[in-house]
This record gives sequence, C-alpha cells and structure tokens, in this order.
Amino acid sequence: MDRRKFLAAGALAGVGTALASTPTIASAVEPSRRRAPAVVRRAPMDAVRLGFIGTGGRGRSHVDLSVRRKDVVVTALCDIDPIELGLAEKQLADAGRPKAATYGANEYSFLDLLERDDVDAVVISTPWLWHARMAVAAMKAGKYAGVEVSAALTLEECWDLVNVHEETGVPVMILENVCYRRDVMAILNMVRQGLFGELIHMECGYQHDLREVKFNGGRDRAGVEFGEKAHSEARWRTFHSVHQNGDVYPTHGLGPVAVMLDINRGNRFVSITSTASKARGLHKFVVDHGGPDHPNAKVEFKLGDVITSVIRTQNGESIIVSHDTNLPRPYSLGFRVQGTNGIWMDVNRSLYIEGVSKRAHAWEEAAPYLAQYDHPLWKRFEQDATGAGHGGMDFFVLHAFVEACKAGAQTPLDAYDAAAWSAVTPLSEASIAMGGAPQLFPDFTRGLWMKRIQDFAMGDAY
Amino acid sequence: MDRRKFLAAGALAGVGTALASTPTIASAVEPSRRRAPAVVRRAPMDAVRLGFIGTGGRGRSHVDLSVRRKDVVVTALCDIDPIELGLAEKQLADAGRPKAATYGANEYSFLDLLERDDVDAVVISTPWLWHARMAVAAMKAGKYAGVEVSAALTLEECWDLVNVHEETGVPVMILENVCYRRDVMAILNMVRQGLFGELIHMECGYQHDLREVKFNGGRDRAGVEFGEKAHSEARWRTFHSVHQNGDVYPTHGLGPVAVMLDINRGNRFVSITSTASKARGLHKFVVDHGGPDHPNAKVEFKLGDVITSVIRTQNGESIIVSHDTNLPRPYSLGFRVQGTNGIWMDVNRSLYIEGVSKRAHAWEEAAPYLAQYDHPLWKRFEQDATGAGHGGMDFFVLHAFVEACKAGAQTPLDAYDAAAWSAVTPLSEASIAMGGAPQLFPDFTRGLWMKRIQDFAMGDAY
Repeated sequence: MDRRKFLAAGALAGVGTALASTPTIASAVEPSRRRAPAVVRRAPMDAVRLGFIGTGGRGRSHVDLSVRRKDVVVTALCDIDPIELGLAEKQLADAGRPKAATYGANEYSFLDLLERDDVDAVVISTPWLWHARMAVAAMKAGKYAGVEVSAALTLEECWDLVNVHEETGVPVMILENVCYRRDVMAILNMVRQGLFGELIHMECGYQHDLREVKFNGGRDRAGVEFGEKAHSEARWRTFHSVHQNGDVYPTHGLGPVAVMLDINRGNRFVSITSTASKARGLHKFVVDHGGPDHPNAKVEFKLGDVITSVIRTQNGESIIVSHDTNLPRPYSLGFRVQGTNGIWMDVNRSLYIEGVSKRAHAWEEAAPYLAQYDHPLWKRFEQDATGAGHGGMDFFVLHAFVEACKAGAQTPLDAYDAAAWSAVTPLSEASIAMGGAPQLFPDFTRGLWMKRIQDFAMGDAY
Repeated sequence: MDRRKFLAAGALAGVGTALASTPTIASAVEPSRRRAPAVVRRAPMDAVRLGFIGTGGRGRSHVDLSVRRKDVVVTALCDIDPIELGLAEKQLADAGRPKAATYGANEYSFLDLLERDDVDAVVISTPWLWHARMAVAAMKAGKYAGVEVSAALTLEECWDLVNVHEETGVPVMILENVCYRRDVMAILNMVRQGLFGELIHMECGYQHDLREVKFNGGRDRAGVEFGEKAHSEARWRTFHSVHQNGDVYPTHGLGPVAVMLDINRGNRFVSITSTASKARGLHKFVVDHGGPDHPNAKVEFKLGDVITSVIRTQNGESIIVSHDTNLPRPYSLGFRVQGTNGIWMDVNRSLYIEGVSKRAHAWEEAAPYLAQYDHPLWKRFEQDATGAGHGGMDFFVLHAFVEACKAGAQTPLDAYDAAAWSAVTPLSEASIAMGGAPQLFPDFTRGLWMKRIQDFAMGDAY
C-alpha cells in the first residue's frame, strides 16, 4: 500500500456519513495542483450546506454574510447559550431562509451537528480552547473546517490539525480575515509585482485596547467582571490573560505577513524569541473601575502588557510580532513591509519606493499606491464586500472558504498555515518562560514547504 | 585605607600634569550628590579649555558650536588628515579665535595632545575603533572626556570606561545628542510628569539609509568605494558592515529611552535578544551603481540589513531597538513610549493619553503636547540652539559637557551610561551568533544602580 492509498484509506475510515462529499488526500499531497479538479474525487457543488458551531457575535457575523449568498444554505446551528442560538435563528428567519437544525444541549453537542448528512462544511467561532478540537472533529467527520483565529493554543493541537488533515484529506482553513484587508491585499499585490524588491524585514501585531472586551458587568453593562458574571468574550477570553504569558493572538498580524513571505510555500518560520513586559494594565483597570477591594483586584494577570516576538525565516527575513491588548492605545496592526527596494508602514499610512517616490529619503502617502494596486479580488467583489464586517474583509474570507468547498479544492489558507501561525502562542510562552531563549518552529509540512506553491489570491476567483 | 581614599590615590596617580583640575572620585561614589560643589575638589572654572581629537565633519560641528561660546577656548586640535585639521584651524581663524596647537603626525598623536596643561577637556569625534581607547587615555590624563557615539565596541572597552572612570574620578560623557532632541525632551518631561503612567514598553532605533555614507568615490564624488579609496565615513564606517553582524550603532535610539527609564538610576538593562535579517542592501548598491564586476561586488557584507534587538529591564519594561542602514528608506529613529496611561510614536507624530485625548482609541497629533511640555532647557536656550546641528540638539549636548566641566561636576550622561548603551553592540553580535540566545548585560554600576539618582536635565541649567 503506497502512502497515498494508505492516507486515502485513513480518510475513508474517518468520514462517517459524509463520505460522498469527502475530497481525497491528493489535494494535500500534491499541493502544486491543489486547485486542479482532477485531484479531487468528488464533483464540484453549486451550493454549500454550512453548519455553524458557535453563534456569538463572531459566528453571527459569518451567518449574516452566509444568508446573503445564493450558494450557501445554513442547515445547522450550534451554541450552548440559548440566547445566542436564538439570535442566529432569527437571522435566518429575517432573511427568509429555512430553519436550521439547532444544537446546544452541552459543550459536546457540536459532535451531533457533525453527524448530519446535510452539512458539507462548518464555521467554528467558539472560545479558543475549542477551536482545534472542533476543527479536528469536523475533518474526521468529512466536513470542511473553517476555524476562527487562532486555530490552536498548544503545539500538540497544531500537529493535530496537520495530522488529521493529512489522514482525512479534508481541508481546514484558518479564517484569517486580515489577509483580505484591502490595503494589505494591495501591498501583497505590490510585493508580487516586485515594487519592494526582495523582502527583508516585516512587522505586525495585534495592538488593540481590549480592556472593555476582557471586562464587563454582564450583557450590555460596563464593569470589571470576567468569567461567569460577565458577557461575551469576557466570559472566556480573559482567562488567557490570567494564565498565559505569551502572544495569545498572533494571526491577525502574522497571517498577512506569512502570505507575503510565502511561508509554507518555499519558505518557513525557523525560530522565535519572545519578551514580555510587566503586566500592569488589567490590574489597573480593575482597580480604577471596580475599586481596590473588588475581588478581581486580587487576580494575578500573567499576560505581559506588551509581548514582543521576533521570528527568523528560512529565507532570512526577520519579523517582529507585537501583542498589546491591556493598555490604553489606538488600534493598530502595526504592519511594516520592507525590502531591498522600499518600505510600507500602516501606522503613518506611508511608503517609500526607490526610483518611484519622487523625494529621496522621504515618506510618501500610501493611498494612491493602494488604489493603483488594488487587488483583483477587491476590484471584482467590492460591491459584495460593502457592508461586510471589518471594512469588507470578512466577506472575502468566507467567500474563499465557500468557493474552495464548492470546488472540492484545497482552501487557500490551510492546515499548515493554521499550525505555523498558531504555533506562535506556545512557542512565545516557552521563550518567555526561558528568559527569551529561541524556540524552533516545528516543520509542520515535513519538508514539503520546499515544493509547495503559493496559491493565495493569485487571481480574482477567491 | 578606605575605598574612597584608595580610589582618590588612584586618581592622583593617573592625572599627570592636569592634577589641579582633576575632580575626585567622590563624584562617582556619591551619585546622589553629584552636582554638589562640596564633593568636587577643584574649584569651578569660568571657562573650559577644549581639545578636539578628530576634526572631520562631526568634530568640526562641535568646534563650530565651541567658538560661539564665550566660556570655551579651543586650545588644541588633532587629526591625522591634514585637510580636515586645516579646516578646523580655519574655523578658529574665521571666528577670530587664537590659533590652537595642532597634532596629527600619526594615529597616536592624540597622546601628545593629552599631555598639555592647557586642556581641561577633550571632545573625541574619531572612527569608532578609537572612541574607548581615546576616552580612557583622556581620563587617565585627567581630562574630562566627551566621546561621540557609540562609546565602545566590545565589552572589555565598556568595562575600561567604567573602571578607568572609577580609578581616576574623571568623568566621561557619551555625547548622545538625541537625548536633547526637542520632541524627545518634551516627551521626557511628560514622562516625568506622569502623563504616560508607569512606563511599560519602548521602541527606538537607528533607521537611516546610509548607503551613500558607506560608499562614495572619494571627496565630493559619488561611487561604490570604501576604505582607502573613499572619503569621510566611508573610509572607516563601512568596515563595520563588512565584519560585524549586530547593532553597531545603538545609542541614538537607546540613549533617550534609557534616560526616560532611569537606566543606571533605579533601573538597569538585564538581557537582550537580537535577530539579524539577511544582508542584501549593500551588495545590491555596489552592483547597481558599480556594476557586477566591481571588486566590491565580491565583498561579503556581514551586517544584516535590519537588526532587531529586544531588551528587558530590571523594572520589567521591554525595549525594541532597531538598526536599519542598508536599505532605501526615510530616516526615522522609530521612537515609541508606552505606559499604563498612554502612548507616543514619532513615526506618525501622534500620541494618545487616556483621560486627556478627546477621542477614545484614536491617535491625536502630538505637536500641541510637544509645545505645551517643551523642556525647560529648550525654553531657556532656544535662541542659542538655533542653527546648531541636527535641529539644535547638538548645542545642548556640548553645553552639558562644558557646563559640567566648568562646575567640576559629574556629566549628566556618564561612564555607566556609555558602557550600558554601547554594550548593545557586542551583546547583539553574540546573540545573533548564537541564534538569538539571550545575553545578560554586565551590571557596570556593580549594584549602585539601586542607589543612583536621576540627574539628567532635571532643570534648566544643563
């Protein structure tokens, strides 16, 4: 039995009732032909039947985009919070869509959803602890897995995503919307057209004052509670600030940078060093707004206010990744793209391209370039993206997931991306715990990064 | 013999003919009283007799500022290049100042200058390789040593500066002009008034396209030569890009940040990790402008185009230090000052202060704040600084050196600052050579950082 047959057999063993719509492993092992119909066993579909695991704010944003599409039928919804589930049901009703089956009896009800024959793919928008295990279960059930960011919290989970993908042949896509941000895609276009020359150094991060996300006083109330007494993300996200000291949310910055650097496709992350500042912001917020005697003033938040990681790549680029969510500050993903021919930064909305920019040694407004190099995807789908979340980029990430699923093809962001980008969380924790000692990235492609070919947004399809 | 007497005796042994103007070690061992006249043995002076070691472009800039001052007499000049030396002599003549003694027969002629009785202090503006050894010789000769940046290239040199300072009691000041940049001093003022809250994270660097500094074709000619065939800094500076892979020029960024963080005065640098990108920019410049067959196209430049260092401090702040001199890019020292209450960045000339800035989560133009918190030194000396180099800041760094010398007091930036800041060069090289492994900073104060008190620009004197 050769490897491909063995893996295909593994896929068969895992697919349960969804056998008919299971793509073969060929799409994973022949990356250079990923979009070629010949390598996918099942026929392309005209519409995708989507299930949603997690229908909180983020999940419902995806539901909203789904009910606008003629090529999506929402067949199942799952959330353990009946209010959130009800809100998603109302979305379907308001849109004149058929009722979906609903699940939510307990934390494992998503497994029941995954057994349905009328679900081709699932969108997972749950607390971080559940992302990888739900994506793994989805792949094992033969469902395309679209998983919100980050995809995994531990190295074992990263490997689970990769190994189960390879065993089942089912794609998992990390739903990193920022890869589709309009300026980011224009810059990607410029990178590919060589305006920056050979890439040398990148910067990115998640710099977002989340204090009022990590704390509230329950639904629609300000406060300094988290966990049981709190609402929405403060119910779960804050625990990661209590227990972890590392970059717990790396992909909004790193995903777009990884795409520009062809990570896992001719390049890879090699090593990382991480440094944490002291942790002051969350405690101060509790004391300032809840008083020094509030029980949460006794909590020791382990997450440093600013986490700085520096990654080296196989091709010799350096990348700074920042995580900065506990302090008062304006939102910024802090992008910087720098090559032998020029530099772009988003914080000052400026760039410099040698031989193109008129004034030497001087910043130039980026806007005209961003317009000139607008990505073909944005040109084609601008109208569809209008009104979609986060400035339209949410349209594109769901679009790509749906189109890949319809085509029976690999997703443009895949298991290797999900693993490599998410691995920053455990690796940064390890580096910080060891006083900044460099940590090696596992090669999740087992060497195939040398042969894999870039397939992200190469045209205007998805 | 107690320690102070022992050290004072050591100082006596080293001062040679300059005994009368040698301050005692007391100024070094009693930092909290550094400016108190009682701890300085010699009387204050009305004017300082300055010698200049190195009269290239940088040295002559200091000469120019010196001849404007009534409290400075330039008594000696030293440069091995007779053209550069002649230009400095002309500066004196043009200003109607008396002729100075001149030296320059060979690379060690500065030792002859240091034997003069009529030199109280020297300003060292020579290639980096000479900074520390000249400063050490100056202190041993009993002359206040003002040394251009960086002050040292190796850890041994850093220790030499500290140990010789302690043995002789003679101050050495690192002439870091950016500590006196107007916006930087306004931000320092804001830091000290608490507007940023407790400091958490800092960023800085030297990001300056030096390709036309590292290469030319001789005096006033463009080209791709360095070393013997080249002029000015290209004669020597470029060798550091050939041989070293580390942050060879850290202090313009790190100095101001160190002052804000009270480094060596209640805080200290603890450890550093450094990462180098690949080296492409200099080779490309040679090929682009000299052709692929130019002999310098065969040179392997070891200096990575972008060097990223991350420093942890004893008080828990993190600092990113960038070095980026080989690529086309606008000049930027990349300052960021971030605390529990707000953030400033210079690249977008913006800040955000919680409770002060009107719009939440939004950048605000920094200019009005910089005007409001203009530092007392700038308010007092604005007219004197007008026309001085680098936007006026060069006036202040020489002013501080001259005033400290006149007072017979410690300089506001001292041997410990010179050592700790300059140590970034060898430590970053070591970290890069070890794949990013963290390196520990020596404690150059031997523990006294816990007791030393901030003395930089506390008022409007200097």
